[in-house]
Amino acid sequence: MRYAVLGTGMVGRTVAARLNSLGHDVVMGTRDPEATADRDEFAAWRAGERGAAGVGLAGFAEATLHGETLVNATAGKASVAILTKAGAAHLHGRILIDVANPLDYSHGFPPTLQPVNDDSLGERIQRTFPGLRVVKTLNTMNCRIMVDPARVPGEHTVFLSGEDPEAKAEVRALLHAFGWPEASVLDLGGIETARGAEMLLPVWLRLMGALGHTDFNFHVQGARRGSTGLVPGADA
Amino acid sequence: MRYAVLGTGMVGRTVAARLNSLGHDVVMGTRDPEATADRDEFAAWRAGERGAAGVGLAGFAEATLHGETLVNATAGKASVAILTKAGAAHLHGRILIDVANPLDYSHGFPPTLQPVNDDSLGERIQRTFPGLRVVKTLNTMNCRIMVDPARVPGEHTVFLSGEDPEAKAEVRALLHAFGWPEASVLDLGGIETARGAEMLLPVWLRLMGALGHTDFNFHVQGARRGSTGLVPGADA
Repeated sequence: MRYAVLGTGMVGRTVAARLNSLGHDVVMGTRDPEATADRDEFAAWRAGERGAAGVGLAGFAEATLHGETLVNATAGKASVAILTKAGAAHLHGRILIDVANPLDYSHGFPPTLQPVNDDSLGERIQRTFPGLRVVKTLNTMNCRIMVDPARVPGEHTVFLSGEDPEAKAEVRALLHAFGWPEASVLDLGGIETARGAEMLLPVWLRLMGALGHTDFNFHVQGARRGSTGLVPGADA
Repeated sequence: MRYAVLGTGMVGRTVAARLNSLGHDVVMGTRDPEATADRDEFAAWRAGERGAAGVGLAGFAEATLHGETLVNATAGKASVAILTKAGAAHLHGRILIDVANPLDYSHGFPPTLQPVNDDSLGERIQRTFPGLRVVKTLNTMNCRIMVDPARVPGEHTVFLSGEDPEAKAEVRALLHAFGWPEASVLDLGGIETARGAEMLLPVWLRLMGALGHTDFNFHVQGARRGSTGLVPGADA
């Protein structure tokens, strides 16, 4: 399978290397491929990381054309603009795996989200590119855990949000290849549920602060029990 | 210990009955005590629920004066106004346990949050009533689980947010009395971290939709491991 991984930061590199290790044909997309290739950090990754050596590097548009499946690992604030320039508007039927978060650092740390609450990055991408089959997933954990869930011992959860059941089924298969057990994958529903997944970031950030590390993930405990009840704190 | 539980919806009733069962002296606060007492649902609860019979009912101000410790179980959108009318501005040194969520149903279901993202209900209450020692907790689960965590088998998490370490220590003791193991209580930090806890509600709502029940809770898996990493999706 040909993958385009858009974004050459740590998330993009981690996902690209893992896909390549699994035998996929991966090209990473970046704004300026020559400048990226020259950066020490990138060159070191290319030379040293398992799975990195076979990964291609190209501009966003060229990478996007290459990929049968796209992975959005760009900074969430830039994702729609990047996908637009990459020509995503002309792509119909391709799956876009959106692992980004629309973090807003303009007011310092910790970042807030933009959009948030009555919209989400996942929805924005789906709305802007109706031909793409957007699946929001993996955005709620450190990138090392995305591709190696056993890094966190015990059971924990990866969410799916998207309109297209077949696209979600294909993403499930990829998650399984990454090492996620079937029972760990929780389908929240349509792309609107990306709001919930993205709004896990504020508590994620504060957990990083409180715990002093990022080797944790959320687990939905009790997902299989059955009972009804009320929304917490909704005493209207 | 004298408790004032503000709010007579399911959350307030559940917490009040549990506190009463533990031997505390509990008065619930409501806008119109006579009207509340007359409601079938409330009368049935009073007569039938274990722990309910000994609970007092009064107006918000009277209940607030009664309580050495306050519990905010009002609708989050109304909390600040209710606490203002209840004279909370004149209370210094009392702990307020804030279990509410600022849910906004004005645009239908599922509700959004107001405030959100760059503010939170917990912070608003603390800012408005600087003399109160606000501790945000228990707002991230169905009320039955708040007072009986064993309802969800296995390990799962209750968060704390607040500025006052001694207030948090007292709330920890109450959580322990409710059945929460020490290891399940996760202190996120200051009251600003209430943002993270409140922003768990959108995914909570969508989990309720996806799972068809509310007998679940979040667990932070791997909280005790140690490593560093990057913020997910922050390829800036």
